[in-house]
Amino acid sequence: MRDITINADFVETELSVRYAETDRMGIVYYANYLVWFEVGRVAWCKAKGFHYAEMEARDRCFMVVAESGCRYKAPAHFGEDIVIRTSLAKATDRVIRYRYEIRRKDSGQLLATGHTAHVITDPEFRPARLPESYRKYFSLPPRT
Amino acid sequence: MRDITINADFVETELSVRYAETDRMGIVYYANYLVWFEVGRVAWCKAKGFHYAEMEARDRCFMVVAESGCRYKAPAHFGEDIVIRTSLAKATDRVIRYRYEIRRKDSGQLLATGHTAHVITDPEFRPARLPESYRKYFSLPPRT
Amino acid sequence: MRDITINADFVETELSVRYAETDRMGIVYYANYLVWFEVGRVAWCKAKGFHYAEMEARDRCFMVVAESGCRYKAPAHFGEDIVIRTSLAKATDRVIRYRYEIRRKDSGQLLATGHTAHVITDPEFRPARLPESYRKYFSLPPRT
Amino acid sequence: MRDITINADFVETELSVRYAETDRMGIVYYANYLVWFEVGRVAWCKAKGFHYAEMEARDRCFMVVAESGCRYKAPAHFGEDIVIRTSLAKATDRVIRYRYEIRRKDSGQLLATGHTAHVITDPEFRPARLPESYRKYFSLPPRT
Repeated sequence: MRDITINADFVETELSVRYAETDRMGIVYYANYLVWFEVGRVAWCKAKGFHYAEMEARDRCFMVVAESGCRYKAPAHFGEDIVIRTSLAKATDRVIRYRYEIRRKDSGQLLATGHTAHVITDPEFRPARLPESYRKYFSLPPRT
Repeated sequence: MRDITINADFVETELSVRYAETDRMGIVYYANYLVWFEVGRVAWCKAKGFHYAEMEARDRCFMVVAESGCRYKAPAHFGEDIVIRTSLAKATDRVIRYRYEIRRKDSGQLLATGHTAHVITDPEFRPARLPESYRKYFSLPPRT
Repeated sequence: MRDITINADFVETELSVRYAETDRMGIVYYANYLVWFEVGRVAWCKAKGFHYAEMEARDRCFMVVAESGCRYKAPAHFGEDIVIRTSLAKATDRVIRYRYEIRRKDSGQLLATGHTAHVITDPEFRPARLPESYRKYFSLPPRT
Repeated sequence: MRDITINADFVETELSVRYAETDRMGIVYYANYLVWFEVGRVAWCKAKGFHYAEMEARDRCFMVVAESGCRYKAPAHFGEDIVIRTSLAKATDRVIRYRYEIRRKDSGQLLATGHTAHVITDPEFRPARLPESYRKYFSLPPRT
């Protein structure tokens, strides 16, 4: 089982809700939470020590989304400060899973929880393995 | 159990993938599938005989998204013709669940499956009951 | 002046306003009109006889947006049927200009007018010339 | 001419380009610059001393977009740090005009310039006048 690990610590990042992200209900449109999850993932990568943009551009390694899910607990509104908390839920050198919490910054109120699963691929979307140099970021031991 | 029913038939609608919906991977960004689910729901409402816009405007009844999920099987590309298939998975007068299939129109290839759950609310997002006049659209028997 | 032409006829295409396209004002968010302009351009290409996706993929020719403008006359609402009218305003083998009208389908009411200008480039965004085989679509005479 | 003023100072705010904002060209989709302009306007309001969300919610005053324009000079890419510079170009108590610069943060390179014009309205989109208490933010003298 050397490829699996659980890393429970959350990486946090913040944003302010954009007018563009709201809909006619006056609250954030539900698809935009998945955009926020992406913002959270990118922050997670930075916090761990690499840039996802470089992972694609230099290492030709892609984390293609295979699954997403979100539970909406309370609405978010234009102008509110939001905290996105991202945690690695599971990692092998082929599949990465994240989970997320979306909270209101001032009160800490939980607005949504979610998860995504990603398949490691090459630029042609063929299944691939996480490059050796990235294993440490996902708490995977070196390949022997 | 008078409030629950399963309605398996899918309502189909079509769209062409917009350039705006793609990302730098060259494929449709994952959050946009949730927008397509919305397009599917709206088509489902029309096929059943009502307009969701009127449900909100005239009957002050909202179907607020409480949950979403999507499994991405194969990528969609700019310009491709897509079929969105929407089916009522479950309905009570308080909670509605849909499930979706996204397929390539030409080949019928399955690109994604998904689901959403919706809570019936009033305009202030307080839990409410589906108006009597809408029960038939969701295959719910008249309240007695 | 062999490179310049004015083609006044509009190509029309239709869409229904998505919930995702509205904002908390209850009307379509202003940036989404530029997405609709793209839908109009793609329809214009099809009406003229080619697919923009193939222009990029097969002929390695890109129409990169250099300028956009929009005047908003009246708001569009969720569920409304919209007509996008697209016209070639000017074409050389280096620069293409379109203009657009957004109208409500039922009443014909003008909701917005706009324009975009596009520079022909290669895949590295270097200025290029419209391929010979595309000149006819833009009412440009064959190069001699 | 008591209603007109020019305020040349720019308010700056920053963001990182989201993956969701890119398209298959590998660069930021052109409509998203208008979303960034909105981010700039909201930052401008905060810098001047008020929240646009409150202007709508408490004072029932809306700044409806009547016009937008953008010139795209150089592409923006996923992960890049961007500076949005927003300046009040003109203000009366009925019409507000902003202009914008989008720059790459590291090099200062100019990526785009743009403008928007806004009409002051009530919640029913009827022309209205800027509330007295907001005149100072727009460098308008008190009404006498």
